Amino acid sequence: MTPLDRALELIASRSAHFFEEWKELVAIPSISTDPAHATDVERAAGWLADRLASYGAARSEVVPTSGHPLVWAEFPAGEADAPTLLVYGHYDVQPADPLELWESDPFVPTERDGRLYARGASDMKAQVMATMLAVRAAAEAGALPVTVRFLLEGEEEIGSPSLARAIEAQPGRFQADVCLNPDTGMIDPRTPSIRYGLRGLAYFELTVTGPERDLHSGSFGGTVHNPAQALAELVAGMHDASGRITLPGFYDRVRTIDTAERERLARVPVTDEDIRALTGVPSLWGEPDFTVVERIGARPTLEINGIWGGYTGPGAKTVIPAQAHAKISTRLVPDQRPAEVRGQLEAYLTAHASHGIRWRLTELAGGDPFICDPDSPAHRALGAALREVWGAEPVLARIGGSVPVAADLERLLGIPSVLTGFALPDDQIHSPNESQHIASWYRGIEAVVRFLYGYAQAVRPGSGGT
Amino acid sequence: MTPLDRALELIASRSAHFFEEWKELVAIPSISTDPAHATDVERAAGWLADRLASYGAARSEVVPTSGHPLVWAEFPAGEADAPTLLVYGHYDVQPADPLELWESDPFVPTERDGRLYARGASDMKAQVMATMLAVRAAAEAGALPVTVRFLLEGEEEIGSPSLARAIEAQPGRFQADVCLNPDTGMIDPRTPSIRYGLRGLAYFELTVTGPERDLHSGSFGGTVHNPAQALAELVAGMHDASGRITLPGFYDRVRTIDTAERERLARVPVTDEDIRALTGVPSLWGEPDFTVVERIGARPTLEINGIWGGYTGPGAKTVIPAQAHAKISTRLVPDQRPAEVRGQLEAYLTAHASHGIRWRLTELAGGDPFICDPDSPAHRALGAALREVWGAEPVLARIGGSVPVAADLERLLGIPSVLTGFALPDDQIHSPNESQHIASWYRGIEAVVRFLYGYAQAVRPGSGGT
Repeated sequence: MTPLDRALELIASRSAHFFEEWKELVAIPSISTDPAHATDVERAAGWLADRLASYGAARSEVVPTSGHPLVWAEFPAGEADAPTLLVYGHYDVQPADPLELWESDPFVPTERDGRLYARGASDMKAQVMATMLAVRAAAEAGALPVTVRFLLEGEEEIGSPSLARAIEAQPGRFQADVCLNPDTGMIDPRTPSIRYGLRGLAYFELTVTGPERDLHSGSFGGTVHNPAQALAELVAGMHDASGRITLPGFYDRVRTIDTAERERLARVPVTDEDIRALTGVPSLWGEPDFTVVERIGARPTLEINGIWGGYTGPGAKTVIPAQAHAKISTRLVPDQRPAEVRGQLEAYLTAHASHGIRWRLTELAGGDPFICDPDSPAHRALGAALREVWGAEPVLARIGGSVPVAADLERLLGIPSVLTGFALPDDQIHSPNESQHIASWYRGIEAVVRFLYGYAQAVRPGSGGT
Repeated sequence: MTPLDRALELIASRSAHFFEEWKELVAIPSISTDPAHATDVERAAGWLADRLASYGAARSEVVPTSGHPLVWAEFPAGEADAPTLLVYGHYDVQPADPLELWESDPFVPTERDGRLYARGASDMKAQVMATMLAVRAAAEAGALPVTVRFLLEGEEEIGSPSLARAIEAQPGRFQADVCLNPDTGMIDPRTPSIRYGLRGLAYFELTVTGPERDLHSGSFGGTVHNPAQALAELVAGMHDASGRITLPGFYDRVRTIDTAERERLARVPVTDEDIRALTGVPSLWGEPDFTVVERIGARPTLEINGIWGGYTGPGAKTVIPAQAHAKISTRLVPDQRPAEVRGQLEAYLTAHASHGIRWRLTELAGGDPFICDPDSPAHRALGAALREVWGAEPVLARIGGSVPVAADLERLLGIPSVLTGFALPDDQIHSPNESQHIASWYRGIEAVVRFLYGYAQAVRPGSGGT
């Protein structure tokens, strides 16, 4: 029996216990954006460090940062010259609101219809636990074929503000040949996926101020520029009629999608009707010259994540609000940069803001876009592992989300990332009733185990192990 | 000593007591829009009915309606053929939020710098109490020169939804020769004012729905029309670049301001700089072909009173909201009608809403605009009373606010309204730190007493009294 077979057997015999471990992590409300949950975030970090130690890590630590802590751990390989794999994950989650739309408590993990429901059940505690449990099984099965380091952060959902500095402070701890990042999902339950590109993020809050205080709309209406209206005008002007973003220079650094990539992306089995059915919108929207797969992965976007101002309670209040606010984020593709987008947004506001209002822009989060060679040994080894478990050819595509760490690891340490994950499009991540498909989660554990051995073999064909 | 002189003497000798009565009413948080304050609204109605009885009303009642109750009272004149004056007032107030901006508790009336600070201190509890105390003084001084009826409503700040039906149910109770409505204010502390026109109101809530639930902006951005963006686009398109409202047919029924009225309004001592200083905006805004006085009183407007959708908490949440909402109100001038404006708004939304979203419009409040002859006996008598007390020529103008009762009384009972009041432009009504200038309040009591005798004299020159 090979170490791989022993590891697979361990996974099968421990499945109920593994499931309980996952639920225990999910029950901790580690909401990074909300200061009221700071102690929960710390608690999750402590729990992870303890678990990694009990799973066989030689070293396991909670590493303080200027924000929420990192969890770092190391499982040494059996052979000194084995490659090193860095596993990236985040243990923080989005807020659960609006709470009233949840069918069960977001922090009481609940099993229904083959899914586990909870905030973070999918994004990304399922993925973190699948990887940790795969490494645990391999470590118990014998000497590890690769050295595995874990880097688990607690600030991904707020744009990873402390991550780059924490890596730069102790670069040796995080050095590796490749990073396995399971924070991207599958196309559907039958189709495993590998991602070779991620969008960057530049997230802002815009405040428009008009009068010094709320005004009576009868006494002053028609003489001052209503800040809620002025904000709406600024927001509305950020796209043209075709859905193109109007910030000056916004597309200057956007790479053209070449013919080879258009062909590759055309093979991704996601149609307009899939997106319409997943979202429930009456009809789709966006740049007409690009497919939905291209628009999600390879084109930049600008979204209004929140808007507020004036009276929002029940009934009628005849007020002109003194201020109105919007949370505005852009998703970036190579070679856009958040700092440049900030300048473009400021230039747009300077050019278009009415003389009747003042505006203020605050940057809340940012991260570079990422793209890499989809044909590296790690990508090939992961493709083989996924093919083996699912019995289907993995899809190779870019993804629309932002995982700043992929760009950070490449820039700071030269580490390429191989991106995958076992989440599904209808997991409703960031929404009420988030869940993870349980069968995909178990397959994910098996796939990661296979990848550990397959990657070692791909890099050092003569090495033992399998 | 005439009855007028005796009444004026009574006012002077009781000023401290009168002040306490006013504060007692102001301390009741009669916020009509907030169901949590329904019992406070009832309490205010009971307090007023009790006071009117103790001030000498022959009859005084709390009259139930389908919403908050009315207060009705009658003080009969000494002579049977004396004219009847209907006093209109409202005892409900706006919500006090944002509470954190108040320097003292909004429902603990607090005296500072010659002003009384509280929600409703000015709008319009000061005006209601000044009129009630004037009638009380006249009633104590001898036989009243006019029959005075009071109609005090508890729903003005939510658009008077029950008022017309309550008047129609018992029209005889409210019948009068003229209505004194002290819900409009002065131009400045030295310049008393009479208003002969009011704007109407049509107030709506617009909800835009896109996806069935909040979406991850990375996974779906660029493929669906973001409802907050779609709402901003709809709102932005409701005005053109010159500040003109674009709803189809919106201006069709707007009366042209004729030369005589332009000249009258040009005499109102309010400049652009006055409005700029009062509001604190960097510069004014609005239709360029009309003065600020014309824009406030004689031109219709459309305002965004509130806007909300998506994530509005601290930090960054990368969500595409499922819904976004706006409170949108229009101020109307003769001969616009709220039902027609609703149709125009629906036509605009039908023409401009994107296929990527659904919309729903709810009407929250409405009232007709009002205009009347500024040269009636009541207007002349009020002008004389104000001139006597302030030693200055009263200004005659329209006003931008909406007091649906003026149009209702004219339509339902044929009663013209004479509009005045002792509020000042910097009372910050509907805003934090609302206050009433106390000296203007005492002058108001005296002016109403003088008006009671002067109006009786103007209508029946041979009658006794003064």
